[in-house]
Amino acid sequence: MYYFYKNEFVHKQDIQISPDDRGYYFGDGIYEVFRVYNGQIYEGAAHIQRLERTASEVRLQLPYSNEEIIDIINRLIQGNNLVEGTVYMQITRGEAPRAHPFPTQAEPIVLAYCTEVKRPLTTIQNGIQAITQPDIRWLRCDLKTLNLLPNVLAKQTALDHGVQEVILHREGTVTECSASNLMIIKDDVLYTHPANHLILHGITRAVVLRLAHALHIQVKEEPFTTNQLLQADEVFITGTTVEITSILRIDGQVIGTGTPGPTTQRLKAEFEKTFLQ
Amino acid sequence: MYYFYKNEFVHKQDIQISPDDRGYYFGDGIYEVFRVYNGQIYEGAAHIQRLERTASEVRLQLPYSNEEIIDIINRLIQGNNLVEGTVYMQITRGEAPRAHPFPTQAEPIVLAYCTEVKRPLTTIQNGIQAITQPDIRWLRCDLKTLNLLPNVLAKQTALDHGVQEVILHREGTVTECSASNLMIIKDDVLYTHPANHLILHGITRAVVLRLAHALHIQVKEEPFTTNQLLQADEVFITGTTVEITSILRIDGQVIGTGTPGPTTQRLKAEFEKTFLQ
Repeated sequence: MYYFYKNEFVHKQDIQISPDDRGYYFGDGIYEVFRVYNGQIYEGAAHIQRLERTASEVRLQLPYSNEEIIDIINRLIQGNNLVEGTVYMQITRGEAPRAHPFPTQAEPIVLAYCTEVKRPLTTIQNGIQAITQPDIRWLRCDLKTLNLLPNVLAKQTALDHGVQEVILHREGTVTECSASNLMIIKDDVLYTHPANHLILHGITRAVVLRLAHALHIQVKEEPFTTNQLLQADEVFITGTTVEITSILRIDGQVIGTGTPGPTTQRLKAEFEKTFLQ
Repeated sequence: MYYFYKNEFVHKQDIQISPDDRGYYFGDGIYEVFRVYNGQIYEGAAHIQRLERTASEVRLQLPYSNEEIIDIINRLIQGNNLVEGTVYMQITRGEAPRAHPFPTQAEPIVLAYCTEVKRPLTTIQNGIQAITQPDIRWLRCDLKTLNLLPNVLAKQTALDHGVQEVILHREGTVTECSASNLMIIKDDVLYTHPANHLILHGITRAVVLRLAHALHIQVKEEPFTTNQLLQADEVFITGTTVEITSILRIDGQVIGTGTPGPTTQRLKAEFEKTFLQ
């Protein structure tokens, strides 16, 4: 596997990140994880658009055009013979002696590499369990930055409780999960938190909403409470790697029938038909 | 200048940080900045205690005892002939392929180095200006972690406005600044936000409260509003590098007489008497 780092394709062991990289001192950088199916980038344009938006919001100048970024990703895919997996790309604000203000001289630093990742078919088919936790993250969860410690801690808490995900809420209003968006079905209506500053604007979230419209499923992008969550007919998460995965039990309580629900199954089938055939 | 990295004293240029360092992917690490006056560590025990607390709260196992940490710092000071400056130390959760959960095998990685830093005498004597901004950080601001992007963005916003600091507030309640704590004097009483999860428990904050008690200045660790801030007789920040620095103008509005106030001056004099003579 070879990597892209500082404008070159290199072997991983030759990468020498400086202690002065602002990614290391401050998490001062942004990232995207691109999904690859059959050697092709899934929703590339949407990922690039989000990367551009995050860069602009944190005032980081992307060192490459969209076409150049797509080219780097494709060269990683081809050079590493990746068929099914992910391409991770992060851009930090560059190298400078540690000081909070933006450095005047630094050049943004791009690191990118690909990883073979199979679709998590077992959990996609069988569903997962989750717990709820207060959402203590900052108020710009729409930005995909390297400041991920709260997400790391939330995910680890889930594992410590023997479940796979954490459902976050702000004073009882459900936002999303530690690394995925959340949707519920109640009386045939799909509810999900609006794409504001409190959640990541997930690419698969947008895809699923599009598929729901195509399937004439009513969609309401409205906040809902943890009580509504527990009373839902179906609950599922969406994400680049998890795709559409049912949550069957939350805080030990069974959701709906305790099996992946019919609307979730229709969305999954439509997702597979659209992207995987 | 030589550094401490991965259990060795090395030259900076020989440090090769792995892309798999979780500090780089997630900001999954913690830090302290120790002040050095006359070759001696200022409030070393308090810094070590805070480092231990942060480590415990983010569930990171410190790889060294308190005595070993102090020894590393002293060897950096002596080896680099540091008289006046800072020692920066950060500890990340170690190296592992990128995945949110804690790695099972990784060893925490310590990076530490010292920098010559003179006391900022001009601003300590003449004061600074600040602007106010909403505090959008996460709800564990008491933890000194590498997730510093909100602080970086706030600091840069200050500079863009031609001032030196940002005073943060949550819906009108003042918390602290982008890299320092805030105190006000009103009718001879010192007010500062209580040391809860919304502010960093500053070492110099604690020192100044101790000095205030010794000087029989009444202290109230209570939240106050941006209105109370603007109506204060004196406003100042405290921090390891800024020590005690007056804020003379906020959002363009003059505070008190527009000069460093008498209570602030008494605290500064006491600080210098205690630590610098």
